[in-house]
Amino acid sequence: MTEPFDFEALFAADLPDGAPPWTGFAEYNFIGGHNDPDGIPVEGLIASAERVLRRRGRSLATYNLDDGPQGDGELRQFLADKLKRYRGVEASADEILITSGSNQALDLINRVMLDKGDTVIAEQFSYAGMINRLRLCGVDVVGVELDRDSLRIDRLAEVLEALADKGVTPKFIYTIPTVQNPTGTVLPLERRRELLDLSRAQGVPVIEDECYADLLWDEEWPISMRGMEGSEHVLHVGSFSKYLSPALRLGYVLAPPAVLSRLVAVKNDGGTGALTQMIVADFLAGNYDAHVAGLNDRLRRKRDAIVAALEEHFGTAAEFTAPPGGIFIWVKLPPEVDTMKLNDAALAAGVAFNPGPVWATDAEPAKNYLRLCFANPSEEQIAAGVAKLAEVCHRETGVPAQSANVSR
Amino acid sequence: MTEPFDFEALFAADLPDGAPPWTGFAEYNFIGGHNDPDGIPVEGLIASAERVLRRRGRSLATYNLDDGPQGDGELRQFLADKLKRYRGVEASADEILITSGSNQALDLINRVMLDKGDTVIAEQFSYAGMINRLRLCGVDVVGVELDRDSLRIDRLAEVLEALADKGVTPKFIYTIPTVQNPTGTVLPLERRRELLDLSRAQGVPVIEDECYADLLWDEEWPISMRGMEGSEHVLHVGSFSKYLSPALRLGYVLAPPAVLSRLVAVKNDGGTGALTQMIVADFLAGNYDAHVAGLNDRLRRKRDAIVAALEEHFGTAAEFTAPPGGIFIWVKLPPEVDTMKLNDAALAAGVAFNPGPVWATDAEPAKNYLRLCFANPSEEQIAAGVAKLAEVCHRETGVPAQSANVSR
Repeated sequence: MTEPFDFEALFAADLPDGAPPWTGFAEYNFIGGHNDPDGIPVEGLIASAERVLRRRGRSLATYNLDDGPQGDGELRQFLADKLKRYRGVEASADEILITSGSNQALDLINRVMLDKGDTVIAEQFSYAGMINRLRLCGVDVVGVELDRDSLRIDRLAEVLEALADKGVTPKFIYTIPTVQNPTGTVLPLERRRELLDLSRAQGVPVIEDECYADLLWDEEWPISMRGMEGSEHVLHVGSFSKYLSPALRLGYVLAPPAVLSRLVAVKNDGGTGALTQMIVADFLAGNYDAHVAGLNDRLRRKRDAIVAALEEHFGTAAEFTAPPGGIFIWVKLPPEVDTMKLNDAALAAGVAFNPGPVWATDAEPAKNYLRLCFANPSEEQIAAGVAKLAEVCHRETGVPAQSANVSR
Repeated sequence: MTEPFDFEALFAADLPDGAPPWTGFAEYNFIGGHNDPDGIPVEGLIASAERVLRRRGRSLATYNLDDGPQGDGELRQFLADKLKRYRGVEASADEILITSGSNQALDLINRVMLDKGDTVIAEQFSYAGMINRLRLCGVDVVGVELDRDSLRIDRLAEVLEALADKGVTPKFIYTIPTVQNPTGTVLPLERRRELLDLSRAQGVPVIEDECYADLLWDEEWPISMRGMEGSEHVLHVGSFSKYLSPALRLGYVLAPPAVLSRLVAVKNDGGTGALTQMIVADFLAGNYDAHVAGLNDRLRRKRDAIVAALEEHFGTAAEFTAPPGGIFIWVKLPPEVDTMKLNDAALAAGVAFNPGPVWATDAEPAKNYLRLCFANPSEEQIAAGVAKLAEVCHRETGVPAQSANVSR
């Protein structure tokens, strides 16, 4: 019998803690970009798998099929067509790089654009995955205030000016203009114009993350900034995770040639999974409209369910705007509630949510916020989970003042 | 009309050159881990896609299905069973991490184990993807001599001693013991024992890369080092690329808990594509033996074809051992041939091969070597491509002394 071998002593210097063993999802799972199991187009994917494998399956013998490192040509063509039809974007398939989730697109952009010590601008409440990535890159992330119309351009101008006074030009502005994560706000067209002009004048690229732009059901879709004039400094990022399946790990980035060739050069992964790409390309080419319409019906009902549950169980203690699309709702609780602390008690009761500070460039102003994702739980689970969360919150913080309609 | 926006000035400091636009594969494609298009089990994959999507398709609504960040439980169980049956390895599915190709497994291991300035040991001729990765990590890669029985353990002992004299303990030994890449050699059982004992005594982990271990047709399979006693310091890496499809981007690593939890912690990608995992798990559970037997028949015939073509067109100018498995052959040409120079002329003539120096820890001893991958081209293309290569080589270097059986 040999002694245990001590790997720990050999590890890299700056290694994070080990991941805990997987113990399954929470009973009431309001976190992550999970989607509705009933919304997975199982029969459509089966039909596409059969059709496309018979037509193109042999090309799986080569890395990246026959289409090179930018990804499957049919999938890129679908994206180019969809971007033109729905987002006002004129782009060719050659300008698109398929990535393993939009997270990989963000990783590649960060790799190409950032050095340690750089400064980046983001919305004050923003996607935790990107905030964490930026911190791992060792850059300063400066947050800009949001309001009901998403990013405040006047505040952005102030932030840019203050940075300029310090001699700092940010490397880029990271924004989620269409169903902003986590606030669910949509940047109006006029603000898009202002953001483009301001950033362009300052020589600052814009990373436009439109992961949720397919899931906007309550209002007109403002077109993508990448579709507007004077947007040559915009890198446009999107995903298949939110409107099809997060487990597929497919995303993309649309970038000018000088940037795209660099993104490809650092994408040192042998390509993104091609079987998935070919099945998805075949499915979406014929089914995008019907699929997304059906999914949005489901999501709107779940949005209504979570709004009703929040009103019922939190009453006036919970402030929020019913989101016009997407899969999450951003909830403000009274200032005495610390959602980081609430998180532990809620998890112990089987309720998982995202505490505000994790979704923010500065923790303090987000202390009493939380994000609830509503796509994955059923309407019944939404009702029961929000009731449970209100009960735990009442017990831990006295908010809401009554629980289960009984003042305690 | 706005001016072009200058992204170049904003790029990170140490960025590689942009990738050139994709122009397709060479006419005679002897590079890369591409496989035989006739070997893709199209109908089997269709049947599995239908069966598994109907059974488990709804779980695509959640990241990583229901199985957490280590990857699909059914696929991990298949691997645990296969490792036990064919590689002598007793391991549970819980010890396995599914990765996006074995390259990602290598990336994660490097991230967990390496700091800039570290030293790593590899075979003198080794996988270019790993050598390049190690160089990007800023570590010193020390090569150890190979012979017909793969890694020379006596030379390894000398290298370890010389490093110890300088106060250097290498972070790991990277080895491809079963169908070594590029030499096609197989490390005998006794050398595996010696390598395990020597590395263990020195406190040096072993990265055992068994990407080609399914494709060994000419001799008994020596079991994996990870299956031998005293192998707690071995990280075992494998792939589905070589015996199923490189375009799937599936690989894995088997590691002790302390390492596995760190690998999972730094695998910040939202999981590996789950649709591919579920289809592959279903297909291989029922078809691994028959599929691999059929593929090996094809590959053996192609191996025979390339051996015959090399003998016919290069005669005694090409020294090689017919590999007992795998998808490549390592060819030594006379010392006056510089395969880096030959490469450009060959590409211009439509023949792509891997020049030896790219597949070596030190370029000089590999100057007159080249690697030819034979799985992708047809037997006819193999014959024509090797003839073309001999013609170009004769024209550029005078080697072989005659071309197309005509001395010039």
